[in-house]
Amino acid sequence: MPKLILLRHGQSEWNLQNRFTGWHDVDLTEKGVHEARNAGIAMREHGLAPELAFTSVLKRAIRTLWLSLEELDRMWIPEIKSWRLNERHYGGLTGLDKAETAAKYGDEQVHIWRRSYDTPPPALDPDDDYHPRFDPRYADLEQHQLPATESLKLTLERVLPYWDREIAPALRKHECILIAAHGNSLRALVKHLDGMSDDNIMQVEIPTGEPLVYELNGDHSVQKSYYLKDL
Amino acid sequence: MPKLILLRHGQSEWNLQNRFTGWHDVDLTEKGVHEARNAGIAMREHGLAPELAFTSVLKRAIRTLWLSLEELDRMWIPEIKSWRLNERHYGGLTGLDKAETAAKYGDEQVHIWRRSYDTPPPALDPDDDYHPRFDPRYADLEQHQLPATESLKLTLERVLPYWDREIAPALRKHECILIAAHGNSLRALVKHLDGMSDDNIMQVEIPTGEPLVYELNGDHSVQKSYYLKDL
Repeated sequence: MPKLILLRHGQSEWNLQNRFTGWHDVDLTEKGVHEARNAGIAMREHGLAPELAFTSVLKRAIRTLWLSLEELDRMWIPEIKSWRLNERHYGGLTGLDKAETAAKYGDEQVHIWRRSYDTPPPALDPDDDYHPRFDPRYADLEQHQLPATESLKLTLERVLPYWDREIAPALRKHECILIAAHGNSLRALVKHLDGMSDDNIMQVEIPTGEPLVYELNGDHSVQKSYYLKDL
Repeated sequence: MPKLILLRHGQSEWNLQNRFTGWHDVDLTEKGVHEARNAGIAMREHGLAPELAFTSVLKRAIRTLWLSLEELDRMWIPEIKSWRLNERHYGGLTGLDKAETAAKYGDEQVHIWRRSYDTPPPALDPDDDYHPRFDPRYADLEQHQLPATESLKLTLERVLPYWDREIAPALRKHECILIAAHGNSLRALVKHLDGMSDDNIMQVEIPTGEPLVYELNGDHSVQKSYYLKDL
């Protein structure tokens, strides 16, 4: 019965400043570092021994993975990084804080973007510095794969093929897999695993730095799931 | 013209204590951390941008890689870890300091083990705690692949197949590759790249934390090689 551990990165610099981050590559704060280490300690104390790890190409998730592996004394396991596990791309909201966003677009519109499953924020201009086409880590992607904005629905549409092609096959070979990623890429996985509706997934808030364990059956249906902190 | 950067890990806890380390998994000292960061800074300042990294499954090399990637702001590149890039296995010398080794085996014998290309130290007993068969990171290896001791020659014999199968093909797809590894696994690569004799490679001492750059031709013959510190 394979175990899948989902771990949302610890607090980042822009979480702290309440700015929309998305694909912008900010680092963890000191608190975030602490959260990541504690996640590793919690996994170790519960006897979890991931054999393989997946993460995004954003340093707040990678650093969360590295720090937790350090505490697990399992820095040697294979790590696979993919843009498909990146945070939702917030398009034109990237870099704005809550007050700036409300001033620019109005409270009601912001509420819609936050609560809607399939309404993406305004797309980035292709010449915007935040557009992923300027970033060497996405140089191998096709133009049509590079988002200029994403709803949660669009996030799911690039996360789930990765689940099917990479993560699910790996779960047939390994007893325990760790995924260190982001609020919305993990929501995509939770929605898929738990078979949740579009409305219900919008209510799910995955806390930072708290390992969420799925115990899966052979067909990857969920036997049970729990946060380590609740045991 | 692809570039290959060889980086020997910074000072480890057992380097400092002058103990034979081999496959034992000790961490960097503070000085070692500093050396690793400086290696990343040096690569960045020389405009080197590794697209892919290889390392061993030992944390002193992995941490050296992670710290240098952090300074390069390239934590997102793929990393591939392999036991084949591990340090030479020192067999029965593992854990002994220089004085203990000399007391146990005599100065002359120690000199032979240090200077000889193909004389391995005494093999570890299969029940010795240091034997790699007890370590989960080697669980997928065949019994005959697990060394109980190694000469430099034996180290080469497990490093070079990895060069042929993994590193050389990757050099045909990438402009710049970083290998963070160990004194003797890097010696194996240097001997191969520079076509050195068995005697000559024993004279080569690769300094810790100093990026060694090979600029290669299409057939992977060496165009030139240099330490960044000498530029």
